[in-house]
Amino acid sequence: MPSELTPALRAQIENTIRGLTIDAVEAAGIGHLGAPMGLARPVFHLWDKHLRFDPTEPAWALRDRFVLSAGHASMLLYSLLHLFGYGLPLDEIKRFRQLHSKTPGHPERGETPGVETTTGPLGQGFGNAVGMALAAKTTQARFGSKGEGPGRHRIYVVASDGDLMEGVSYESSSLAGHLKLDNLVVLYDDNQVTIDGPTSWTFSEDVPARFRAQGWQVESIDGEDVAALDRALAAAHGAGKPALIAMRTTIGHGSPWAGQPKVHGGPFGPEALRATKQKLGIPESPTFLVPDAVRAYCEGRASAKRAERKALDARLEAWRSSHEGAARSWDAVRSRALPADFAGKLVDGLEGKADATRKHSGTALARIAALAPGLLIGGSADLAGSNNTTVSGSGAIGQGDEPFTGGTVHFGVREHAMAAITNGIALDGTFLPYAGTFLVFSDYMRPSLRLAALMRARSTWVFTHDSIFVGEDGPTHQPIEQLDALRAIPGLTVIRPADGVEAALAWAWVVTEARGPVALALTRQTLPALKRDAPLTLETLSRGAYSVREPAGEPDVALLASGSEVSLACEAAALLSSDGIAARVISAPSLELFAAQPAAYRDELLPTSVPVVAVEAGRGESWRGLVGREGLVYGIERFGASAPYQKLAEHFGFTPDALAKRVRAHLRG
Amino acid sequence: MPSELTPALRAQIENTIRGLTIDAVEAAGIGHLGAPMGLARPVFHLWDKHLRFDPTEPAWALRDRFVLSAGHASMLLYSLLHLFGYGLPLDEIKRFRQLHSKTPGHPERGETPGVETTTGPLGQGFGNAVGMALAAKTTQARFGSKGEGPGRHRIYVVASDGDLMEGVSYESSSLAGHLKLDNLVVLYDDNQVTIDGPTSWTFSEDVPARFRAQGWQVESIDGEDVAALDRALAAAHGAGKPALIAMRTTIGHGSPWAGQPKVHGGPFGPEALRATKQKLGIPESPTFLVPDAVRAYCEGRASAKRAERKALDARLEAWRSSHEGAARSWDAVRSRALPADFAGKLVDGLEGKADATRKHSGTALARIAALAPGLLIGGSADLAGSNNTTVSGSGAIGQGDEPFTGGTVHFGVREHAMAAITNGIALDGTFLPYAGTFLVFSDYMRPSLRLAALMRARSTWVFTHDSIFVGEDGPTHQPIEQLDALRAIPGLTVIRPADGVEAALAWAWVVTEARGPVALALTRQTLPALKRDAPLTLETLSRGAYSVREPAGEPDVALLASGSEVSLACEAAALLSSDGIAARVISAPSLELFAAQPAAYRDELLPTSVPVVAVEAGRGESWRGLVGREGLVYGIERFGASAPYQKLAEHFGFTPDALAKRVRAHLRG
Repeated sequence: MPSELTPALRAQIENTIRGLTIDAVEAAGIGHLGAPMGLARPVFHLWDKHLRFDPTEPAWALRDRFVLSAGHASMLLYSLLHLFGYGLPLDEIKRFRQLHSKTPGHPERGETPGVETTTGPLGQGFGNAVGMALAAKTTQARFGSKGEGPGRHRIYVVASDGDLMEGVSYESSSLAGHLKLDNLVVLYDDNQVTIDGPTSWTFSEDVPARFRAQGWQVESIDGEDVAALDRALAAAHGAGKPALIAMRTTIGHGSPWAGQPKVHGGPFGPEALRATKQKLGIPESPTFLVPDAVRAYCEGRASAKRAERKALDARLEAWRSSHEGAARSWDAVRSRALPADFAGKLVDGLEGKADATRKHSGTALARIAALAPGLLIGGSADLAGSNNTTVSGSGAIGQGDEPFTGGTVHFGVREHAMAAITNGIALDGTFLPYAGTFLVFSDYMRPSLRLAALMRARSTWVFTHDSIFVGEDGPTHQPIEQLDALRAIPGLTVIRPADGVEAALAWAWVVTEARGPVALALTRQTLPALKRDAPLTLETLSRGAYSVREPAGEPDVALLASGSEVSLACEAAALLSSDGIAARVISAPSLELFAAQPAAYRDELLPTSVPVVAVEAGRGESWRGLVGREGLVYGIERFGASAPYQKLAEHFGFTPDALAKRVRAHLRG
Repeated sequence: MPSELTPALRAQIENTIRGLTIDAVEAAGIGHLGAPMGLARPVFHLWDKHLRFDPTEPAWALRDRFVLSAGHASMLLYSLLHLFGYGLPLDEIKRFRQLHSKTPGHPERGETPGVETTTGPLGQGFGNAVGMALAAKTTQARFGSKGEGPGRHRIYVVASDGDLMEGVSYESSSLAGHLKLDNLVVLYDDNQVTIDGPTSWTFSEDVPARFRAQGWQVESIDGEDVAALDRALAAAHGAGKPALIAMRTTIGHGSPWAGQPKVHGGPFGPEALRATKQKLGIPESPTFLVPDAVRAYCEGRASAKRAERKALDARLEAWRSSHEGAARSWDAVRSRALPADFAGKLVDGLEGKADATRKHSGTALARIAALAPGLLIGGSADLAGSNNTTVSGSGAIGQGDEPFTGGTVHFGVREHAMAAITNGIALDGTFLPYAGTFLVFSDYMRPSLRLAALMRARSTWVFTHDSIFVGEDGPTHQPIEQLDALRAIPGLTVIRPADGVEAALAWAWVVTEARGPVALALTRQTLPALKRDAPLTLETLSRGAYSVREPAGEPDVALLASGSEVSLACEAAALLSSDGIAARVISAPSLELFAAQPAAYRDELLPTSVPVVAVEAGRGESWRGLVGREGLVYGIERFGASAPYQKLAEHFGFTPDALAKRVRAHLRG
């Protein structure tokens, strides 16, 4: 039985967290002290009394999620993970911010057990949490709506002033309020200090009024008053909408410089460290001290939480017995169960079919939804009709009597939140989420795209209108540099299919092979179906590049392209052929997949003896490595223009004639 | 004397705007109808009765600014520009969305007289307008505070639901409210419809309450009620804070399908067009009809506005006479007047001085502020101390009794708004604005970075902490792909200086040579001063790349690098030299500037006969074109790690030994 939490013991635990924090930052020589010190009381109390978790099973599906959106307060999280017995020994705390430690400067999912999402770039965790809340509500509605099924857990967030200043948090909270995500609770660390100075320098909005305007339940409390926190949480849990608890805290609580901007970061240095420890009543040494009473209490609580987990698991088992169909569906989705010949079923009938690849993508989505019921969830940032992201009949989330049974999310004109929320859904682990907008607006999403890649979150980005062939909307809507910019993100796989078969196989790859985020680049305009000697297989697509047109003899030139430029290259190759120039045409839907192939495959497809011309209706810088100094990237080095896309094809030289002419000139040297 | 605006004439003018809109969209075959039709009344009224402008002098400094943040409503703006006699003949309206017309799909600054900023990507115009308002307040405070000096104009914005859903608008409005920008008025087109459907699907926040929470004056009116609009504007102008006027409008007003999502975009097609024209009381033909009475009225108003301008100019002349010093300062800033040997003064004393390039950048800023008083305005998104963006003694905008006399903007943790606002300041044309954050967070700013490039706005981005050598903050804070992603943006010049002299000359280039936006990539860590045979000149830096270390004989290899990797390459070259390998070391601070050099210069520096190794502590894809298929990019293809930067240098192989070893292996083949 755990020891009783007397006021003295509570203070000792909080000061242990503060002590670990300042010792760790002192040892590292750099790090954030202020927020962990100011948050020790309310966040420890949340974990102790409210948060549902089992440190021995960090992936337990029914756990509450704790998201430290203020990722710079990492030592708060690491301290709690250590004290409650997650796999984070004290030695790791001592190696805070060191190479290969489990305690990096900002929390990284996958590096540390119990870290739900990678945070640090502000506002992102907030958006992830909205996605996790949406995933939980949807889990409950799809599978666990009757009896004690899954999806009843809560999502708790700790957010700083900085989080709330970032646009992505406004977008996310707007949608969360709209969808009435009542399983979401945000603890706002209202410490009135940012790095540069007091928040009064920059941030004077009425935060409670702002959140109320967005449909949130709001309570304002003193962060040191745990009874007030209990009351606020009780109010939150019954509110029927997301809740913000604005907690007035003191940055660097316990330090002689508490409340001042300079305690945001550290280290303190020996003298200030000594003064702070004295004020906190902790001995100067040993450092990294966890008193026995603290350890005993936390271990006791961890055991109790484990027992709670077992009770809940037993109830889940009972639910499984009484709701076998729902349980089977839940398991099928989580295990990514698919019918035999899944890829074949996606491709079926597309051979020879001309259409825009965004439409082929829409067809694939509809087929996946039918073949793997309940697996998908996704939508668009107000361009659903253009992105072909709506699965017909799947229902809109947030609408109707059962607002979370649908499969389509109307994200609104909120690309950034869409991406952060999609990552949160992916991290939940139940569903395979996707999100669509125009390729050019991937710019609005980049911070979240990067974090998806860093976390290997299985978010799929449906980027349509993937070139100047957007046409009349003009340069503001025409991507030029976006393909290169996406390909530059480590760990993001970009696939730009050239026709319906490639588009269907790209989706097959997403569902069956991807181990991280994927960006699909899809055309607005209709493309012809490629003519291939043999049907394209998933295995060949997975190689990233393959030959779609072989000349009779040895090639004089290799034309390398993706997406809409592959059929263009084929037409140019036909023109070249009549001049006696033998051109191999290579479709390269994914440079990342191609780069991962054995050198033998790459060299066979692109022998150094054959000049290479890469064709892309975009900047095309990412082809330079394949083309070489002597090769040619036939791309677009400036912004687009507003005109019908056929006119733009002429203007920018993306016609078979213009391409063939340029290739001829290039080969002449 | 202009004819009287009877209710009938008013309706006729509004319907002329609607008629031009639907004819233009019909002719183009694609475009947005709904918003221009719904906004015709209030926006025409704004232009007619309130907006201060002279169509014959679109760049008149004292004009009010009109920002169509809802850029898809471009036909509204084009119609007004045409009717009021800007240089936009009817033939251009007829060529809406055609190649080389002055009427692209979305308004583009520089393409059409009277277009203040390029809009279309939602939320951007809102942020630009905040920047224009800030520039006006600062102009008034710095130069025109006494008498009838400049900077007293107003900034009017038309924003859609989509604009208000974008995070950048929340960030921008938060800062605008904080700074009490009382010269800013936003007309919110509350038409309750977005592309996908009714706003009730996605957007249920209480917009007036939201803006009040951010410190705005808010009025809600019926958009058809011009008397209410007059009252709301009067209230706005006296409010002492920015104002939102929420106008309930009807999308597609005048069409039989008014108020329905399907009138967002068009064309109508012949039948619906006929029905609409009938309902509006316009003849079916001729199309593009501007009735004589409409033309006469608008011409009359344009003349009256021109007369108003002359009166204001006369008062400005009087101000010039009575405030000669202020007028001289204003002119000096606007004409970019600089002392002789400006570049030399920036470089003075930096030869041989080791420091972080961010600190050298801070020194340059301080010198520019002293050499060109009043020219600069800028700041950081809450990382001022780290970005070295604060000019000592320049004062903070928004603080003290005279809140707009300072030079430093505390943007808060709002990178995206910072960028959009900076663009707005640049577009105002008075000041040279700059904005700082960590390089990795350039991701948060990309939509605005792109628009700066498209508009050739002279925004300068101060991106510090430009590699994994950020160190302990870890991969979330370490740029890998950002340099490549920035270099991919057409029209953006990226400069990554290698030491203090290069950093100072980079700033000299920004002030004296740049004709568009510039991104500076600067180190957190101290760099040694490069040893050069001759002092570096601005002319050489402007070439983008130059040799910093020549071997005695012909080079066996060229080491190509920028920023912190140049000194690393020099050290590696010294090691190689002791093995008998002669290495030329090239510092390439700007690939864009280098690419613009004559081929002769490029070939001399990088002869194809010499193998090239590019070194960059980042992805390095943008070097591939210079390195070739046989060359080597010595970069980082994965995310970074949390550790002291010296450890990361070892871990990622960015030490002289590791680099020399790899070069040796590469040359062996």
